Formats: sequence, structure tokens, C-alpha cells
Amino acid sequence: MIPPDTHLEIGSLLFEGVDQIDLTGPFEVLSRILNATYRVYGKTAETVRDIRGLKLTPDAAIEDAPQLDVLHVPGGFGQEDLMEDEAVLAWLRRQAGGARSVFSVCTGALLCGAAGLLRGRRATTHWASFDLLPYFGAIPVDQRVVVDGTWVFAAGVTAGIDGALRLAAELRGEDAAKAIQLYMAYAPEPPFDSGTPERAPPAILEQARAAVAAITERRTATARRVAARLGVQP
Amino acid sequence: MIPPDTHLEIGSLLFEGVDQIDLTGPFEVLSRILNATYRVYGKTAETVRDIRGLKLTPDAAIEDAPQLDVLHVPGGFGQEDLMEDEAVLAWLRRQAGGARSVFSVCTGALLCGAAGLLRGRRATTHWASFDLLPYFGAIPVDQRVVVDGTWVFAAGVTAGIDGALRLAAELRGEDAAKAIQLYMAYAPEPPFDSGTPERAPPAILEQARAAVAAITERRTATARRVAARLGVQP
Repeated sequence: MIPPDTHLEIGSLLFEGVDQIDLTGPFEVLSRILNATYRVYGKTAETVRDIRGLKLTPDAAIEDAPQLDVLHVPGGFGQEDLMEDEAVLAWLRRQAGGARSVFSVCTGALLCGAAGLLRGRRATTHWASFDLLPYFGAIPVDQRVVVDGTWVFAAGVTAGIDGALRLAAELRGEDAAKAIQLYMAYAPEPPFDSGTPERAPPAILEQARAAVAAITERRTATARRVAARLGVQP
Repeated sequence: MIPPDTHLEIGSLLFEGVDQIDLTGPFEVLSRILNATYRVYGKTAETVRDIRGLKLTPDAAIEDAPQLDVLHVPGGFGQEDLMEDEAVLAWLRRQAGGARSVFSVCTGALLCGAAGLLRGRRATTHWASFDLLPYFGAIPVDQRVVVDGTWVFAAGVTAGIDGALRLAAELRGEDAAKAIQLYMAYAPEPPFDSGTPERAPPAILEQARAAVAAITERRTATARRVAARLGVQP
């Protein structure tokens, strides 16, 4: 826990093709942390669209970000285009090096991996990309939220809400996290039990895998190139 | 369930001071409904900020929206400024009149109430505003998601995710909703049990009530004026 009178700089990376709730779920939690500034950073300050078209605008460009205390890296299909973008990867390395906490959601873990930040780290990511973690030297842990030292990893998409509450508790204590949870009325009641590959009906899982087959293939090819660059033997 | 070959127009109202996850939670679900167009409508097409500062941009202004099949009305403190905005209220009445479904999240219910759309309807809203529902002639139902005919009401903030999955099932069948849930990895594991006034520690509930006291007072005064205008005896 960080003393309440220590101001925190919290920042999310925003990019074209982000899966918006990877960002907006954590935003709902982390933007309520007291004595903190939360800003959203893009490659440029221009408006981008999420994977399904939602228009989101960064507060500033990454080059204008201060050293962050909390670096949040969301995922989404658009992560793929940044996997070999040296400007973004260098920013992630620099920010992660100085941050108190790094928080990766969904395939944001692959981006952190491409930046060389996952070597030897216990990590998780979206179920469809879980098998790729070893290409970055990470140790895959099949949990919804994985805490490894100062890193917090949330698995797929909505896991970012659970991860952000864990992170809020790490930063400001459990009572602070509970107060945020109450405001958000986060007492989920999913109407169906279909949120994991293990629980979803097999036919629905099969369809889902088919739907992500193309991006998964592309991600695997990229992960192989990254592994070669990092000198990782998956 | 609506036949899969029937195209659906889905639209959310976006406004300054929205609580962003009231919009973005449902967006994550409803934007994945097949054979549908999902657009976000503002009073104007200008970028607005959510209650905590996230910059979101509508796709178009409300006056340019077609008749929607699904009308989604989020909440947030900014709802208060629209409670007596006749242009927005008239749009809500017109859209709700022609929609197959209306979906209210959080204090979006108060906006629908101000438009005169809640008379005799079983409804819910955020716990801090729950007592105001009778001012609009609604019948308060203390459930996370309330379905009343073609209307779906989600209670506070993150309840919009649960409500949107219910709505997706109503629109396209349970399998479609389950496939979306799997993609979103919506198998929540809240790290704390503090998501409702009944479960939160009493001291945290007391703090939370104090934090929303000013907006609750303002909302109550507005609800009284609306009740007088609607001729409702709460």
C-alpha cells in the first residue's frame, strides 16, 4: 500500500483496435483512486476507434507522458500492429522500468512480452492467446488475475475489472477498493455460465475458436518473430 | 428472439458526465450482435468527457439517428443536466415509442422517467437513486436486472454488463449471448464482496452515501419538479 498522501500518476495506453473494455473497465476503477491523476496516452493525441468502432480520444501522446506510477496496457486485435512498433515498445520498457505497478489486461500481455518485459514472469492473457505466453519467456498461469511482484495480469477482457480492483487494493488498501466496488455496484450476476472455455457449451467454444482463428494465426507468427528477436526458446 | 436476418439498429445516448461504463459495458456486448449497426448519439457530434474525464465521441447527433430498434440510455451524474432538456426528452420518447427494446442502465432510468416513460413500469436504478423511482410513477424492483415487457433495466454501473447479456439473449437467443460472454471472458471473480449496500462494510457504505449526498439531494429536487410536471403522486 502506498501512503494516501503520495500522488500517483496513472496512465493507459490507447491504440487503434483496442478492445475498449480492456481500457474502460480498469478506467472505471482506477480513475476513482484518490490523490491520483489518470490520463490516457496514444501514439498521437488523435481519436482512435476500438475493435468494434467506439471512438476514444487520448489525453495526450505517449511522448508527452510523465513517468507513470501505474502503467496500464490493454489488449484487443489492434495490439498486433504494435508488436513490432519500436517507438511504442521503447515507451513501454521505459515506463515499466520506472513504474510502481504495471497492469496488463487481455492481450496487452503480448505487447508487454514484445517489449521484452515478461521474461521469467508469471503471467496470463486472453484464453485464445494463452498458449503464446512462452514465446515471450513468460510462465503461463491459468488464473483470471495473476499478481507477480509489482505486476498484475488480468486474463480476458472483463477480467480487467477484477484485476483493477486487486490493483486498487495494492495501491490504496482494501477499504479503498471496496468503496470503489460499492460505487460501481460490482456484484455481478452473469445470466449464463459461459465465460470460460471450460464452462462454455462445446459448440459455442468451437465457433469462438473459429472466429478468432485468423487473428490467432497472425499472433502466433508474430510471437515466433518476437521470440527470435528476444532470443527466447519457447 | 428476433430472426437473425432482421437487421437491428442499436443506439446509445452519450452525454457530458455520463458514467462511461454505463455505456461501454453494454457496448462490449451489444456491438457483437450479428446483423446489427451500433452507433452512439450525442446532443451534438462533439466529443464529451465522462464523469471521470474519459473522452468519448458520438458517431452522430441525436437528430441524425434513424428509428432505433434498441435504445440504450446510460446514466452518470451528467444525466441531471438532461432531466429538463426537452430536446433530449422528446428524442427519448420518440425513440422509445418505435423501439423493439429500451435498455436503461444506472441513472439512465431517471432520464427515461423524466421523459414520462416509466409510468406503471417495474424498474430499477443505482442504489443511491433507487428511492427516486416513484417520482416518475415507476414501481421500484430491487433486482440487479429487471425485465418489464420490452424494457430491460440494469441497476448500478456494472449491472449494465449483466443487463446487456440478458438483452442480447432476448434479441438473438441464448447461444448468441453465451458466445459473446465467452469472448468477453465474463466469468467475474470480484476480489471483495462489497458490491451492494447490503454487502459493503457499514463504514464504507456510510462514506459512499456521504460522497453522493450532494448529487442525491440535487436529483431529489429535480425528481420532485419532474413529478409535478408529470402529475405523478409519489
